[in-house]
Amino acid sequence: MSNKGRTEIATLGEFGLIRHLTDQLELKNDSTVKGVGDDAAILSYASKQVLVTTDLLLEGIHFDLTYVPLKHLGYKSAVVNFSDIYAMNGQPKQITVSLGISKRFSVEDLDAFYSGVKLACDVYGVDIVGGDTSASLTGLCISITCIGEGESGRIVCRDGAKETDLICVSGDLGAAYMGLQLLEREKRIFRGEKDFTPDFAGKEYLLERQLKPEARKDVIEMLRNADIVPTAMMDISDGLSSELLHISHASHVGCRIYEDRIPIDYQTAVMAEQFNMNLVTAALNGGEDYELLFTVPLSEHDKVSEMKGIKVIGHITKPELGNYLVGRDGGEVELKAQGWNSLSE
Amino acid sequence: MSNKGRTEIATLGEFGLIRHLTDQLELKNDSTVKGVGDDAAILSYASKQVLVTTDLLLEGIHFDLTYVPLKHLGYKSAVVNFSDIYAMNGQPKQITVSLGISKRFSVEDLDAFYSGVKLACDVYGVDIVGGDTSASLTGLCISITCIGEGESGRIVCRDGAKETDLICVSGDLGAAYMGLQLLEREKRIFRGEKDFTPDFAGKEYLLERQLKPEARKDVIEMLRNADIVPTAMMDISDGLSSELLHISHASHVGCRIYEDRIPIDYQTAVMAEQFNMNLVTAALNGGEDYELLFTVPLSEHDKVSEMKGIKVIGHITKPELGNYLVGRDGGEVELKAQGWNSLSE
Repeated sequence: MSNKGRTEIATLGEFGLIRHLTDQLELKNDSTVKGVGDDAAILSYASKQVLVTTDLLLEGIHFDLTYVPLKHLGYKSAVVNFSDIYAMNGQPKQITVSLGISKRFSVEDLDAFYSGVKLACDVYGVDIVGGDTSASLTGLCISITCIGEGESGRIVCRDGAKETDLICVSGDLGAAYMGLQLLEREKRIFRGEKDFTPDFAGKEYLLERQLKPEARKDVIEMLRNADIVPTAMMDISDGLSSELLHISHASHVGCRIYEDRIPIDYQTAVMAEQFNMNLVTAALNGGEDYELLFTVPLSEHDKVSEMKGIKVIGHITKPELGNYLVGRDGGEVELKAQGWNSLSE
Repeated sequence: MSNKGRTEIATLGEFGLIRHLTDQLELKNDSTVKGVGDDAAILSYASKQVLVTTDLLLEGIHFDLTYVPLKHLGYKSAVVNFSDIYAMNGQPKQITVSLGISKRFSVEDLDAFYSGVKLACDVYGVDIVGGDTSASLTGLCISITCIGEGESGRIVCRDGAKETDLICVSGDLGAAYMGLQLLEREKRIFRGEKDFTPDFAGKEYLLERQLKPEARKDVIEMLRNADIVPTAMMDISDGLSSELLHISHASHVGCRIYEDRIPIDYQTAVMAEQFNMNLVTAALNGGEDYELLFTVPLSEHDKVSEMKGIKVIGHITKPELGNYLVGRDGGEVELKAQGWNSLSE
């Protein structure tokens, strides 16, 4: 929120601001018939099913503008919604972007935020088709709804996991959480010092995972190319444990995952060591990974084992066997949903 | 927000709260394949076009909980979104409901809010299919997205008004604004007094228009039964002047409306007199009427004139003739968008 070239939002008003932000929007998708500019957007999904997901992001709860650049925030706000559509084995196609804005934001600030949203939309082939803007008495409030398409018969829910299915995870876990710890630490140090340069050398991956996450469109494409339809799938936003328990409950099954199979990046491990944190706990409960967690029939073992960046971390069991992490020593620890929850005490 | 039987939201947590609020949801529409409970909802709109609209409502900006009951707020939050879908000549079918909640709200408060949303959904035949809940550091934040269906060729946008078209309005205007003035006055008086009973006798209609507005589903049905497809249509949320100018700009036309044709209820007129306010200004710029403003070809004159509760208030002109209100004395005043705008100074 720099002050140079600051244009007050009040000089544009609501409709002027909407025009300013949405003037140059190009529509990319055949399913977008009409975008911004009327009471509602018009979409056409004749031969596909429509997927809808929505996320609310509030300042002070989901993000801290002292270290999150607005462009990154825009990018992330869009991507986390795309991730939910991919997690249904679908393709995101449209979003609406609603913003509640307090007086300290300028038009340039919103331009920065919107440039991040637009970049994400370009990267993932999504159209901005509507939204709402309002004053906010307090912090920044972001509400994004994403609409996507799914093919009948290939949409993947949480409730289809079966006994003996393999549990798979893309990428690695815990890095975004470590990135957040790092940003919070530097913020605390910064408060006490005048001439402060944050120490992020060698930790770029952790910061990127926290500030500019990507949705795993590539994994959905890999699965399609391999002709695999997972039996259940979710994206990991609240932590692996929490998401696995969602699948177990919805599918009426149990699960075993193996500590030594959980994918963790080197930088995550180094950072956990520095912070004196339990690495496995961070990977299980850290959240904001936006990786895909999915189950496939045992018969797909060879195919998924060959997939780049996909790790088989365990298997589905009968429900009465519960949900457990098997440690390196063979000991079993029950999985708990300790993921981040803004509404807990 | 009563304290008796108060259940803290933290005792449920996010997932518990979502389950609590969405447990008994019945799905009414064929187009709803799967509702709450996965990464995204699944909808099927094979033979129809999909309409999407979204609204952000923030405490202190859009509503004041000192006099707005939470059940009414829930009802209104849903209805204002339905209104946008009807304004496209469509039918609302699904909504997602996202809430940012501060600590002062209890589970019972949210139950009250949700009971209003559910009531509106029952009245209008809409399914709740998703949403998000989060803690909020400040006030209540409500973001609702509505998805509806429209028939190809019968969807009505803002940009189709043609010269000589008749301008029509449903219901009456200015009452919701007068209701707001009344509530604000009683709030001011209440602050200064101990034993206070608000004076609302004979003003029930104004309060209802402000606190429990309805969307004009019935008008859309009347138009269909009369086989009329308007050339342009909007709902009146920011005031008649502002909406008319949207249609004029989008359609590249001008307009003349007549002061003596603007529908105003008796209670609105009495209240304006009491408040020493200009009645026509209130009707033109008051906002929150949620009536339908639409244009039809001149050839439909007889049909619309016979429609109950529909008033022809003027006609569309060439663009160079501008946008004017013709007064009772024949004088012309240019229409300005003075409607409510949270982002103006």
